Amino acid sequence: MKLLSKNTYVEGILAGNIVILSQAITLLESSRRDHNELAREILDSVLPHTGNSFRIGVTGVPGVGKSTFIDAIGELLLENESRLAILAIDPSSQLTKGSILGDKTRMERLSGKKNVYIRPSAAGDTLGGVGRKTRETIMLCEAAGFNKIVVETVGVGQSEVAVHSMVDCFMLLLLPGAGDELQGIKRGIMEMADFIVLNKAYEDGQLSAKAKKAIQELQNALHYFPQKKLSWLTPVKAIDALAQVQIQELKEGLDSYWNHQIQHAYFGLRRKEQESFWFHETIKQELLSKFYSKPHIQAEMKKLEEAIAQGKVSSFKAADSLLNLE
Amino acid sequence: MKLLSKNTYVEGILAGNIVILSQAITLLESSRRDHNELAREILDSVLPHTGNSFRIGVTGVPGVGKSTFIDAIGELLLENESRLAILAIDPSSQLTKGSILGDKTRMERLSGKKNVYIRPSAAGDTLGGVGRKTRETIMLCEAAGFNKIVVETVGVGQSEVAVHSMVDCFMLLLLPGAGDELQGIKRGIMEMADFIVLNKAYEDGQLSAKAKKAIQELQNALHYFPQKKLSWLTPVKAIDALAQVQIQELKEGLDSYWNHQIQHAYFGLRRKEQESFWFHETIKQELLSKFYSKPHIQAEMKKLEEAIAQGKVSSFKAADSLLNLE
Repeated sequence: MKLLSKNTYVEGILAGNIVILSQAITLLESSRRDHNELAREILDSVLPHTGNSFRIGVTGVPGVGKSTFIDAIGELLLENESRLAILAIDPSSQLTKGSILGDKTRMERLSGKKNVYIRPSAAGDTLGGVGRKTRETIMLCEAAGFNKIVVETVGVGQSEVAVHSMVDCFMLLLLPGAGDELQGIKRGIMEMADFIVLNKAYEDGQLSAKAKKAIQELQNALHYFPQKKLSWLTPVKAIDALAQVQIQELKEGLDSYWNHQIQHAYFGLRRKEQESFWFHETIKQELLSKFYSKPHIQAEMKKLEEAIAQGKVSSFKAADSLLNLE
Repeated sequence: MKLLSKNTYVEGILAGNIVILSQAITLLESSRRDHNELAREILDSVLPHTGNSFRIGVTGVPGVGKSTFIDAIGELLLENESRLAILAIDPSSQLTKGSILGDKTRMERLSGKKNVYIRPSAAGDTLGGVGRKTRETIMLCEAAGFNKIVVETVGVGQSEVAVHSMVDCFMLLLLPGAGDELQGIKRGIMEMADFIVLNKAYEDGQLSAKAKKAIQELQNALHYFPQKKLSWLTPVKAIDALAQVQIQELKEGLDSYWNHQIQHAYFGLRRKEQESFWFHETIKQELLSKFYSKPHIQAEMKKLEEAIAQGKVSSFKAADSLLNLE
């Protein structure tokens, strides 16, 4: 990739140039430090133009129908000349190429539309990695004029925790039938959800018996989660994304949520909490990564882990001695 | 407190001397560094004598009846000449004195028994703080011959996460009637529970209607939590601790759990994972605390947090600049 000047990137992004935007995102994701630094200078310049979007997170295990769902609801999000960016986070960064193609193909309605930008994102394997790159990508998209951002994650690994901490609305997709399908869902995800969406819940246009049971059980289960401080009761919405059943109604639910957030001033509050979270999370990740990347720390750490496993030293004593090596 | 020699502590603890044990725990909890260091030397010496207990965590919101429950089940845990230590963690360390007295009074059956040691523990407010002190206290108690350890926490704050990471069995106490009473329960607690115990579930010796409904709902809710890898299905047990209803049955449930853990070799596995967790958790806490305790970092951090709140700088950029000050 041939690098452009910082100003060329900044002007291109602010003008809504998708090619330039894509190149800037590639700089963010690059493993080269000079690329990252240029990307961050670009980000600094466009900072006043970021933040003006409705950020929606969509998560769920593979096969739940995330892409089909985003394709269906995405059309409705394009109302009032909105511009929609879809960031698909692939936690298995080495394998992205296959799923990118898959995602684009599955979003038949949206791909190719001029107001829609679909961008797969290789995530990296730390909370910090997913968080920083995706969050900065969101900001660049906002600067380029996208006012609806959908972030899609597979509901496994740490990526959904990161995504929850950067969106205004977090949607969890589930399938009726519970049991087996849900085992991939990680601890705490149910509690993070602002919406629970039960996909493939209709058969021949009718709510299936399995779906009815799942709705009842999910609603009961939600009683056992901590009440959100935002005074929003997480609804369970049954849809069929492929057959387009209840998509319009779900979109109206999103609008209500949005109005509720604005009305109660929770929107700004949540964003501020997220900024503060990422400030400290970034510091934590950097301090840890600096410490653990030192070769002599790594060597001693292995020895200490063995000694702990054999009961020769307590974990605290081992930690102390590793810290003393710094 | 007059300090004794390290060997006097070690010999006293190994001989099961409660006075010496208490003094050593006080050294652990002390804010004086020389006290902590002496305590850790003691711990090192008794290390080969630690680990031989069944560690049980009991958590629940205030008013759920934790002390009454521990008092009731504690008697049964004393079978076969067992020795029982009860560590009550009070996260509001400044206010311990009141609740200590309260706990001792409420454990009528146990307090004063010669095989029972009740120790309140001022926890500190970090995961690391709770974790390290309580875990090292457990180890000292084990060295002193206690083979049943109950760790009681109020189910608020971070203490229950710490406790979950140091016990073999984690019990969550709830009340029937759900709703309001449960709001104090923090994210992820339901999923950590190896047992859910519904206290005050009987009226005139009969399972109440509210309790029946709660059991059904809890069992449904448990479907929506990630399956534990230990292949143990968290049971919901209805009891009345004060009236001693179903306590014997619950004790038998604990025995089954114990046998299940041993039989499937999960016991040792979980302990090893916990050791590794605390090794890295301690390192993390120490690195962060070292960084944030520097006065120039603190001063700049405040400025940066304001700048972030005003949208003048991105959280990542702010983190970078704070890290560069180190």
